[in-house]
Amino acid sequence: MSKNSPLQARTEQDAFGPVEIPAERYWGAQTQRALTVFQVGEERFPAEVIHAFGLQKIAAARANRRLDALPPDLAEVIEAAASEVRAGLFDQHFPLPVWQTGSGTQTNMNANEVIANRANQMLGQPLGTRAPVHPNDHVNRSQSSNDSFPTVMHIATALAVRDRLQPALAVLRAALEDRATVFADVVKIGRTHLMDAVPMTMGQAFDAFARQIGHGIDRLEATGPRLRSLPQGGTAVGSGLNAPAGFDVAFCEEASRLSGLDFTPNPSKFEGMAAHDALLEVSGALNVIAASLIKIANDIRFLGSGPRCGLGELILPDDGLTSSIMPGKRNPTIAEVVVQVAFQVIGNHATISAAAASGNFELNVAKPVLLHNLLQSIRLLADVAQVFAQRMIQGIEVDRRRLKSNVDNALLRATALNPILGYDKVVEITVKALRDDVTPRDACIALGFLSAEDYDRHVGTGP
Amino acid sequence: MSKNSPLQARTEQDAFGPVEIPAERYWGAQTQRALTVFQVGEERFPAEVIHAFGLQKIAAARANRRLDALPPDLAEVIEAAASEVRAGLFDQHFPLPVWQTGSGTQTNMNANEVIANRANQMLGQPLGTRAPVHPNDHVNRSQSSNDSFPTVMHIATALAVRDRLQPALAVLRAALEDRATVFADVVKIGRTHLMDAVPMTMGQAFDAFARQIGHGIDRLEATGPRLRSLPQGGTAVGSGLNAPAGFDVAFCEEASRLSGLDFTPNPSKFEGMAAHDALLEVSGALNVIAASLIKIANDIRFLGSGPRCGLGELILPDDGLTSSIMPGKRNPTIAEVVVQVAFQVIGNHATISAAAASGNFELNVAKPVLLHNLLQSIRLLADVAQVFAQRMIQGIEVDRRRLKSNVDNALLRATALNPILGYDKVVEITVKALRDDVTPRDACIALGFLSAEDYDRHVGTGP
Amino acid sequence: MSKNSPLQARTEQDAFGPVEIPAERYWGAQTQRALTVFQVGEERFPAEVIHAFGLQKIAAARANRRLDALPPDLAEVIEAAASEVRAGLFDQHFPLPVWQTGSGTQTNMNANEVIANRANQMLGQPLGTRAPVHPNDHVNRSQSSNDSFPTVMHIATALAVRDRLQPALAVLRAALEDRATVFADVVKIGRTHLMDAVPMTMGQAFDAFARQIGHGIDRLEATGPRLRSLPQGGTAVGSGLNAPAGFDVAFCEEASRLSGLDFTPNPSKFEGMAAHDALLEVSGALNVIAASLIKIANDIRFLGSGPRCGLGELILPDDGLTSSIMPGKRNPTIAEVVVQVAFQVIGNHATISAAAASGNFELNVAKPVLLHNLLQSIRLLADVAQVFAQRMIQGIEVDRRRLKSNVDNALLRATALNPILGYDKVVEITVKALRDDVTPRDACIALGFLSAEDYDRHVGTGP
Amino acid sequence: MSKNSPLQARTEQDAFGPVEIPAERYWGAQTQRALTVFQVGEERFPAEVIHAFGLQKIAAARANRRLDALPPDLAEVIEAAASEVRAGLFDQHFPLPVWQTGSGTQTNMNANEVIANRANQMLGQPLGTRAPVHPNDHVNRSQSSNDSFPTVMHIATALAVRDRLQPALAVLRAALEDRATVFADVVKIGRTHLMDAVPMTMGQAFDAFARQIGHGIDRLEATGPRLRSLPQGGTAVGSGLNAPAGFDVAFCEEASRLSGLDFTPNPSKFEGMAAHDALLEVSGALNVIAASLIKIANDIRFLGSGPRCGLGELILPDDGLTSSIMPGKRNPTIAEVVVQVAFQVIGNHATISAAAASGNFELNVAKPVLLHNLLQSIRLLADVAQVFAQRMIQGIEVDRRRLKSNVDNALLRATALNPILGYDKVVEITVKALRDDVTPRDACIALGFLSAEDYDRHVGTGP
Repeated sequence: MSKNSPLQARTEQDAFGPVEIPAERYWGAQTQRALTVFQVGEERFPAEVIHAFGLQKIAAARANRRLDALPPDLAEVIEAAASEVRAGLFDQHFPLPVWQTGSGTQTNMNANEVIANRANQMLGQPLGTRAPVHPNDHVNRSQSSNDSFPTVMHIATALAVRDRLQPALAVLRAALEDRATVFADVVKIGRTHLMDAVPMTMGQAFDAFARQIGHGIDRLEATGPRLRSLPQGGTAVGSGLNAPAGFDVAFCEEASRLSGLDFTPNPSKFEGMAAHDALLEVSGALNVIAASLIKIANDIRFLGSGPRCGLGELILPDDGLTSSIMPGKRNPTIAEVVVQVAFQVIGNHATISAAAASGNFELNVAKPVLLHNLLQSIRLLADVAQVFAQRMIQGIEVDRRRLKSNVDNALLRATALNPILGYDKVVEITVKALRDDVTPRDACIALGFLSAEDYDRHVGTGP
Repeated sequence: MSKNSPLQARTEQDAFGPVEIPAERYWGAQTQRALTVFQVGEERFPAEVIHAFGLQKIAAARANRRLDALPPDLAEVIEAAASEVRAGLFDQHFPLPVWQTGSGTQTNMNANEVIANRANQMLGQPLGTRAPVHPNDHVNRSQSSNDSFPTVMHIATALAVRDRLQPALAVLRAALEDRATVFADVVKIGRTHLMDAVPMTMGQAFDAFARQIGHGIDRLEATGPRLRSLPQGGTAVGSGLNAPAGFDVAFCEEASRLSGLDFTPNPSKFEGMAAHDALLEVSGALNVIAASLIKIANDIRFLGSGPRCGLGELILPDDGLTSSIMPGKRNPTIAEVVVQVAFQVIGNHATISAAAASGNFELNVAKPVLLHNLLQSIRLLADVAQVFAQRMIQGIEVDRRRLKSNVDNALLRATALNPILGYDKVVEITVKALRDDVTPRDACIALGFLSAEDYDRHVGTGP
Repeated sequence: MSKNSPLQARTEQDAFGPVEIPAERYWGAQTQRALTVFQVGEERFPAEVIHAFGLQKIAAARANRRLDALPPDLAEVIEAAASEVRAGLFDQHFPLPVWQTGSGTQTNMNANEVIANRANQMLGQPLGTRAPVHPNDHVNRSQSSNDSFPTVMHIATALAVRDRLQPALAVLRAALEDRATVFADVVKIGRTHLMDAVPMTMGQAFDAFARQIGHGIDRLEATGPRLRSLPQGGTAVGSGLNAPAGFDVAFCEEASRLSGLDFTPNPSKFEGMAAHDALLEVSGALNVIAASLIKIANDIRFLGSGPRCGLGELILPDDGLTSSIMPGKRNPTIAEVVVQVAFQVIGNHATISAAAASGNFELNVAKPVLLHNLLQSIRLLADVAQVFAQRMIQGIEVDRRRLKSNVDNALLRATALNPILGYDKVVEITVKALRDDVTPRDACIALGFLSAEDYDRHVGTGP
Repeated sequence: MSKNSPLQARTEQDAFGPVEIPAERYWGAQTQRALTVFQVGEERFPAEVIHAFGLQKIAAARANRRLDALPPDLAEVIEAAASEVRAGLFDQHFPLPVWQTGSGTQTNMNANEVIANRANQMLGQPLGTRAPVHPNDHVNRSQSSNDSFPTVMHIATALAVRDRLQPALAVLRAALEDRATVFADVVKIGRTHLMDAVPMTMGQAFDAFARQIGHGIDRLEATGPRLRSLPQGGTAVGSGLNAPAGFDVAFCEEASRLSGLDFTPNPSKFEGMAAHDALLEVSGALNVIAASLIKIANDIRFLGSGPRCGLGELILPDDGLTSSIMPGKRNPTIAEVVVQVAFQVIGNHATISAAAASGNFELNVAKPVLLHNLLQSIRLLADVAQVFAQRMIQGIEVDRRRLKSNVDNALLRATALNPILGYDKVVEITVKALRDDVTPRDACIALGFLSAEDYDRHVGTGP
């Protein structure tokens, strides 16, 4: 059965005339019309947007009830229906693509229609009656798409950050910290400009990685005050026309209660509807996390390169996959996934920047593309942080023989002798060691600068 | 039935041991292993990648047969099975996410496994036998993932450009040209810096739009020589190890025959596997098309803004959708979709730039993310060009009364008098007209510079 | 006198042999060598980088003195010379391009050489003696380019944010708030999707702008803890080799005293040298500010468009410039500068993202390009915020006649009657008003729905 | 003497009143006014923009003369003065920042004023007379800033591509090809996923690099038809108001004669003034070149990493610079400059994309920022291609001992035995070789699969 020619259909009426809708679908006329208009791409909003709409409609119904803007019986049945949407029971009834009106109006309409139909069904009515619960007059009461959709953008983003990304980053940080502890005494050669420098420990390298992720967690946290500020209550343009006084405060109280997050009313609904700086700010934090992940994943795969002709200092866990032509070849596939996800996040950030900058007058009309990219970035980073931690980081081991040989051979170990011998003699050591293909220790002794004993005492065996 | 715990399963064996696979699935052990490893995101390659793999495996089988690298009976049954993959019969048997090994190895393995299983089935064997047709030894004969996947990237992209995007752009250009013809004599005020300037015709504005799209078509065409250059034949690193001499030429001949496109062997397989500059170049052309669309869509929605308090010179077709709070409000939704798609393409271009620049040594390992973004950009631009043409451009009309009133009132019409009166007197006219709130014609006559007759003769009524 | 063939030159010696240097220049051999190597572009670091190096060398000298790593007399004369660098007396002695070693080593060497030469001169020596103050052994004591340059990156950025950008944003916010107050009672039509919506005040629009800038100030502030965390003390790779214990703490205390900013030692020098996430985070905040400015500048120039054929609600101040062909044409030039600067900042952010993600092992070697772009973004945003405030925002007036006429004519004023008449009758009003080209008030009365008195009472004259 | 309070000044008059101008400066009133308005940043257009303006004004004067739009004597003196501007004699008389009106009007005015003053001076008049040659009426005759500035954008870009970038890329390609020839027989291990794969030659790697640059040259060339299409003749909005018929054709003929490039009139001046897709297309080609350079520079510095603990297969030429703390450390500084320039070009491309997409109605008003970024990208790529070729590529040598040892040890050399022994036995070889830390040759022999002689015959010593 195609979307456009349902075998069994009911007819609904809206302000523009009758529309045929597949009989078993809970959406209504405006959604059905939108389906024929927006035949672009296959991208859909993720389920968390639909669930956030459920939460938003519950909070709105409760606020309306508290402010006597809806009779208790209608508010209750709306809340019951919206709770099912929030719980994911109606995900299949949100068929619209991301590529729709820039205000997200059609998805808000879709939510209103599904909830109205379900509420009326709970009250014993068939689908399509639009009474006693009307999608616009009751489910959307005191609201507009123009304030509801951006409110859902903030709620869905805040929840995805709290429930998916922050925990996944914590897992990744913990895995890195664990390796930092395990490798605390593993001496390695440091590399600057890709060139051999002076020694350090592998633990210090992993500690730096862990701190990068830790800062990423803090960066996300720092965006919270603006992310949890909601424009609900602004209705059509931000002025709050047709919403009762105090609706914004009541809504935020209910949304906070439902979510466990501390949502607050944006003091300028105009700002919250016309601009999406707060969401771009979140994307900026994701962009930094992506950059961190690229650094970390690249270091790990280069340090694990080989097994014979690479750096070979790390031994990466096997993923059970191989080459289609080179038997037994093992590749750092997980690190490659991490880097690819990071590239996606960086590109999404460019899309989000363009979208956020594009508002005109009282409304930003690039909301759907912005939300789609932002939630994709969060989802991908969360998934990849988990997989990175569990399938790669936790299983990393070191090749101690290779590490020791590298440290012993590194010419610039002699840098530690600067204060003893002076810069010029150290140059002589490194030049001789390189020319004669010996360790700097052997060169130093051969040059008669220090005894073996003194060399070892000054240069030591650690970083 | 979840992916990981099939109720009914068969057991397959690969180099790493036994794997349980859902009984009715045509994929094999490596695909099944990959499913458990890459649990990141929900993005899948579009079907055209799978179909292009079908084409690639047909061409490879034919080339192998021509060069005696496969016995005719095996080559034939591989071709038969691959033809079904190309025709879309096995789309549901490619379950892997975009977020996999950076070489796309798992999807190549997936194709090998599905085709081997289907070929063996055609020969009367149950799924999972790996004989007489073996996924690696026969379906992947003379190939590696490292050359097959980038070859498919080029083929899928070239086909999507030829079959989807170029026709859609042609439709859009034709629609714009049609409006240019229809509006050829409609005089409007030109605007520079958003400010009233001198007159022109609406036809000229739409002709400029049409030319932007026409140049986009040319830009895409200009990327063709490099886009149709294929790395097939390079096998593992580009050297062609284990492929018969002439495989690249034979493959390209067969691929050209199958597709109707003129594919040629990349003289450096190394270049074609380690770098994806050619695909980044295509993305660059898409990026320009996105910029063109933003310009066009913005102009159209601003010229159609109102109905009372905007520019109101264009009357945009109705889409049958409205506001959830403001009854009867009509919005330029299609133009908003166009702009949002363009933002996505611009961001995808950033992702593709990062991916293309990230190759190391003999392989670029950001292939999947690059391909995913590139094909998404092509698909979205193609869809939106069609929808823009058919649901907006073709229905655009002009508000002649508003256009005429604007032209009559525009102060800088008087610029045409520069050669007659000199710059200084023209300044006097515009200053007086603005101050007294009259037309520049009235001001000119009131200042005694020209008679009404002379004014009309010099300034005219057209641009 | 060209750089490469000085008429009068002195000869300096470094580890690689003798070098000719223009006699009157304070730089030394390594700087001179670098001049011939890096012949790329003309971009130079801004003076604030040089001044920040002055501050950094003062703080290092003081820390070395406190920790007995330098004798007091040498520390004092280094401080004296570095103070002159900080004060801008030696800006002309930093000739190197941005396009140099990715660690910024040459500019650190340049600073060491200039300060050593100046210090020796203060002690009565000619330029080039390298004694008693040696550029590496004394000026660079307890330091490496690898920790000094990123420390300077943080210091210069933190100072530019505090001293230039934050004050300029405060000026802009105040100007917008002032207009919000002045226009508090000016009713205008709100616009969503560019289309006429319902009324609001011009003050509310400017208040939203002011809040966007206010949030920008907060966003910058939120990056502070990580921006003020310094890697000084890490020396070559982060391990602190050859620096005395406590050097990092002493350095930060001195740097804080000198700057008035609360600098703290990065607990992982490795993180601070190998990654520049903290600076990318700052760029992310600038990117949001750029997006805000695009929104604000676009709204203002569209609202000021005309004078006859645009929206014409704002009257923008005259800048005294005009068209080369259209006499008397006034353009919103300042707003165009704002938008162009914002585009630069957005592109710089892309550069900074790539640079920040590109670190390998113990060092990020895209430091110069990162710093160049970051400081350019800060400088341009600071300048443009000032100019925007002072040459445009402060002088904006409204066209009350146009505003009133727009509000009276706007069809959707009738939305306020939804609760009184119901959605369907309001549709009738807007349809009739549009068809008959009358105000919605007249249409409502003509339809017999309300008396003129009742209409005015319900719809009001304000938003 | 500050710009704003000249000690010695002349007074000029324009439509807005008198202006004080430094006595020795050739610019006029509009330039002077602009100096006080646009106090943003320090960026100036490069000299090639000024020289291109010289060329444009010569061509315009000649076209005007041919079409009797200027008397021969005035046309001649304008040409004489403009020729001096083209030759660079007046670079110091173009003081305006990039950050100006989005049409570039002020710089066009600046050119008009300087040329008028110089022409009048040639005719014996003091600066500031504006007669007999008037900046607007004569130098700007048949032109507007709106068509002249974008014409100059195209001319300056086309010349910079032809004269700077293409030759530099040719030098770089030749240097890479030379290394490809020199290293044609140098066997190295290939690496995919950073992991040891199968052998190839170093010559093949450099050949791939050379081809990437060669394709870059072709990509630039492919943009030519649209880059050389000029909007001159469109005047104010594209309609050609006040320009004689045929002006566009005559102008392009003269510009072609002057430049040696085949310039053609854009058939839609509207397109050429309102959109800058053609310049964005050029930037797209630069973006690909940047990506190529990142790949090449990264490969070279990784292959040259060491000297002891890296890959060490390439020996990079010494640049005479070293570390401030690690004596004798040599770094791949030139490669780092290449990568940093590439990051700049990628970011500039983002700026240019935003600028190109931002046109409204008849004019794109992000022209200055677009041009500034585009020419910076061209300049930097040209410089860096030269420096990369001459200071790095030409001096690269190989470490044959390291290369041979790597190839001998690489486990996957055994892949060549797939057709002889079958996939399973090859797995046994690689597993044994890795476990026992021996070469695959030794493992194969120890397993009794092949004699030493047979192994060498099948696997060979080359790729």
